[in-house]
Amino acid sequence: MAVRREMNILVVGSVAYDSVETPKGKNDHQLGGSATYFSVSASFFTRVGVVAVVGKDFAKDDLSVLEGHGVDTSGLETDSGETFRWAGKYTDEMNAAVTIETRLNVFEHFRPRLSPDHRRAPYLFLANISPDLQHAVLDQMSARPRLIACDTMNLWIEIAKPRLLELIDKVDVLMINEAEAKQLTGEKSLVSAAAQLVKRGLQALVIKRGEYGAVVFHREFTFATPAYPLARVVDPTGAGDSFAGGFMGYLAAVDDTGGEAMRRAAVAGSVMASYTVEEFGLKRLKSLTQKEINGRFGAFVELTRFHPLGGGQGLPLVQKV
Amino acid sequence: MAVRREMNILVVGSVAYDSVETPKGKNDHQLGGSATYFSVSASFFTRVGVVAVVGKDFAKDDLSVLEGHGVDTSGLETDSGETFRWAGKYTDEMNAAVTIETRLNVFEHFRPRLSPDHRRAPYLFLANISPDLQHAVLDQMSARPRLIACDTMNLWIEIAKPRLLELIDKVDVLMINEAEAKQLTGEKSLVSAAAQLVKRGLQALVIKRGEYGAVVFHREFTFATPAYPLARVVDPTGAGDSFAGGFMGYLAAVDDTGGEAMRRAAVAGSVMASYTVEEFGLKRLKSLTQKEINGRFGAFVELTRFHPLGGGQGLPLVQKV
Repeated sequence: MAVRREMNILVVGSVAYDSVETPKGKNDHQLGGSATYFSVSASFFTRVGVVAVVGKDFAKDDLSVLEGHGVDTSGLETDSGETFRWAGKYTDEMNAAVTIETRLNVFEHFRPRLSPDHRRAPYLFLANISPDLQHAVLDQMSARPRLIACDTMNLWIEIAKPRLLELIDKVDVLMINEAEAKQLTGEKSLVSAAAQLVKRGLQALVIKRGEYGAVVFHREFTFATPAYPLARVVDPTGAGDSFAGGFMGYLAAVDDTGGEAMRRAAVAGSVMASYTVEEFGLKRLKSLTQKEINGRFGAFVELTRFHPLGGGQGLPLVQKV
Repeated sequence: MAVRREMNILVVGSVAYDSVETPKGKNDHQLGGSATYFSVSASFFTRVGVVAVVGKDFAKDDLSVLEGHGVDTSGLETDSGETFRWAGKYTDEMNAAVTIETRLNVFEHFRPRLSPDHRRAPYLFLANISPDLQHAVLDQMSARPRLIACDTMNLWIEIAKPRLLELIDKVDVLMINEAEAKQLTGEKSLVSAAAQLVKRGLQALVIKRGEYGAVVFHREFTFATPAYPLARVVDPTGAGDSFAGGFMGYLAAVDDTGGEAMRRAAVAGSVMASYTVEEFGLKRLKSLTQKEINGRFGAFVELTRFHPLGGGQGLPLVQKV
């Protein structure tokens, strides 16, 4: 496997073993974690380095999954103790998991240490971990990355909101879901929540809506994309991080952080998320080809296009006087 | 007000007085009903005739609302008794109303009788009323309309499913929401539900998703449009029927029932629905201008466009070998 050598995106987040139950079946002890889904997804676009911690129980085969995708695992620390574990269950709607168990294990005392190479990464993704760890990574960067994006979750909004807001004020793109945006701002309308967050200084708030797609509230425009309509969703785990991986992977690959690029990045993210949910864990991403990715990007063009009318974009309206 | 004389769309449905409570306030006794929202919305595109029944209590001012929009009200029967009444309440999410009270009143014994002119309507919309009444209208058409669309609701799926399916097999477009599509087919996935319904012979199943937009499952393609992101939704009542009015109004105005037209029709429908929900009842539609409609159609172009890459539609993917 030949990939570009230089590391283009650094991600800090979790590498985990998940036990997942969905209406389509159960899968115990599958490789997961935000940094895993993100880096494998982004690896189709550019070279990714991962900063995370695993336990002594972390399997060599699982390390090979990352390395097989060209992911730089030099920042993957091995600590005594067990790898982070998450168990969750999805009901019929598949939109939200019920967490059955979370065992932080080695994550409890993790302090990320970045190599000189990692400190120079031009794109940085702070996946959903504690704001303190996100700050700890950001503070070690030797130069301000061209683009910093971060994720978070309800837990951190509840127990570490000031520290989280401090982080948000330092990043360019916040990628969360609708409930989190409302919880974070106290607003009842998503549009008002977005306005409040963008006003803090974000370039864009990216709202992940699961089966309803994603919305980019950029400071200059709003862009919405549907999700790809799938007849069979097997396991939604990792969809959000796969989306983030496609989004950041695209931007880093074209090295463009402008608004037009962010529109396409949101579609690239949607393409990656749509594949992830087709199988348990990383199974689908592992077999994914470039041809399939490009094919589904083309399918998104078809899914969303409506030619504005020739000779202007207006509608044929009755003349009322 | 000068509108084209020939009646282009016939709608049968309810004309009602609604009492609505939303997080933004309360409004008692507002003019509503599926045929009302549909015909006022479609009136911006073409001439609409309405077939419905009202009671002795129906106000002259409310008749003027319809006539002021050029709606042909010759099919609006006045019966002894009271106009149909509905009372409902929306909670924070604004996605589904809780019905507090439904009083059919004059609708209980309504038998639609179509005039010779109405029997020749080229476009027909059978709004959400009992399948028996929908059949009664369809059976009176002197020629097969160019396009027949219908709506329905959970009640009819529960108590009159065979009769409803018989109707669906005679129409071209079914416009319902996601829960109804699943209930009607017994499928858990929307895509599977759509496949089952389209296989029966529909040209298209149009799924109305409220704040998440709409999806057209056409027999030749799938098209998805987001809803327009609004900071303030005052009253979602009538959004679905306003959508249907914009959808059918557009198709009838361009007299084109092809797939490309249906994509634009779904956006026209979304434009109309997005305005309806900005105020209680018909208030916003009553003040709506052509310029505003065209402006928001343009905003939908901006909301959804992502230029595929120059020199092909592919993504910049890492070469993995």
